[in-house]
Amino acid sequence: MAESSSAATRVPVVAKLLTANEQVAAGNRATFQGHGNLVINIMASPGAGKTTLLLATIELLRAASVKVGVIEGDVASQVDADKIATTGAPVVQINTGGSCHLDAPMVRSGLEALPLEGLDVVFIENVGNLICPVSFDLGQDYNIALLSVPEGHDKPYKYPGIFEAVDLVVVTKSDLLPYLDFEVDTFRELVAGLNPNAPILVVSAKTGEGMDTWTGWVREKLAAR
Amino acid sequence: MAESSSAATRVPVVAKLLTANEQVAAGNRATFQGHGNLVINIMASPGAGKTTLLLATIELLRAASVKVGVIEGDVASQVDADKIATTGAPVVQINTGGSCHLDAPMVRSGLEALPLEGLDVVFIENVGNLICPVSFDLGQDYNIALLSVPEGHDKPYKYPGIFEAVDLVVVTKSDLLPYLDFEVDTFRELVAGLNPNAPILVVSAKTGEGMDTWTGWVREKLAAR
Repeated sequence: MAESSSAATRVPVVAKLLTANEQVAAGNRATFQGHGNLVINIMASPGAGKTTLLLATIELLRAASVKVGVIEGDVASQVDADKIATTGAPVVQINTGGSCHLDAPMVRSGLEALPLEGLDVVFIENVGNLICPVSFDLGQDYNIALLSVPEGHDKPYKYPGIFEAVDLVVVTKSDLLPYLDFEVDTFRELVAGLNPNAPILVVSAKTGEGMDTWTGWVREKLAAR
Repeated sequence: MAESSSAATRVPVVAKLLTANEQVAAGNRATFQGHGNLVINIMASPGAGKTTLLLATIELLRAASVKVGVIEGDVASQVDADKIATTGAPVVQINTGGSCHLDAPMVRSGLEALPLEGLDVVFIENVGNLICPVSFDLGQDYNIALLSVPEGHDKPYKYPGIFEAVDLVVVTKSDLLPYLDFEVDTFRELVAGLNPNAPILVVSAKTGEGMDTWTGWVREKLAAR
């Protein structure tokens, strides 16, 4: 047993210890801020259209003289990074080797491969997953969730954590709305019930619907830095 | 330091220790086998059409006098179990409370809620995720992966583990093939490269395409028990 404390003993109280991931994320954030980068972490299911949205976004932002770099996260392969590279944007692929999310050290390991000093926006495309990525700070400024029309409007019931955690929700593949039973208004209500402050955009990278609103959101956040 | 072994000392070698999950999974398997249940674990992304496939499958198998029960796994909510219940099939919902996969003890906890002795087939609908569920034995006889047409044919590159692990791959939402760039032949080649023995079926629960082949696969496995 420890000795009893005297009345004069000061008891140290540690309000919050940073985890190893949080420490590295703080370092990443400082690095990004030092280069003036706006950093946006994109989370979504497999096949929700993250890479396709990025391909169209890079071109639209380039037309507005906004320079974009991309950090691609996948369990395996570099197919997404190869697609991004066709735009000429700087990109680095991180393979998690089985892990269902990126973490801050993984992102750290990719930073040297990007010319951060010349970039306005860095998009992080997280591993396709609605659950695991939510809990890991990477050093980003904003979190966004994509939800594609074919996945169905009921997903906020089943995966509430991601919709609670994000700053913006983007409904992708709106060109498929005529062929599917996705109720946009129901989805808006479900998200609002979890996260009243998150805007919800509806876009199609294929037809261009909503893309100006989406890139406008990015440019607004860039201007506010 | 331990003492040196004498020449006569027998060294026990434990070839493989069962994990806690594997021990419970073995118990689940014995329970299912004792009741003559065929147990199929369904894994897929969020919104790939697991529940919709099950709804149509339950009706088709009922018409063939095959009795089906369902174990529904989700992070939160019981919306999927409520849908299954509309068919009259016995169903139990398991909420993982944040975990990205079912495990054997979770399945165990749901078994008392099902009338196993009267069931031919038990489907386990795992949490929507292409990564985490692959590593956890639940006591099932077969693993299957669904991949929906909107997710894209490139997913085996990025999530090889699940395609290596399953006994059957089902491409869902084939009714959307006319509207999307999903290359069925490319997908078949990619899966075959990872898992040459897994059959690949193409189905639409909406139009009925391929559903007889899929339920035929289930009935074949049931007959072989």
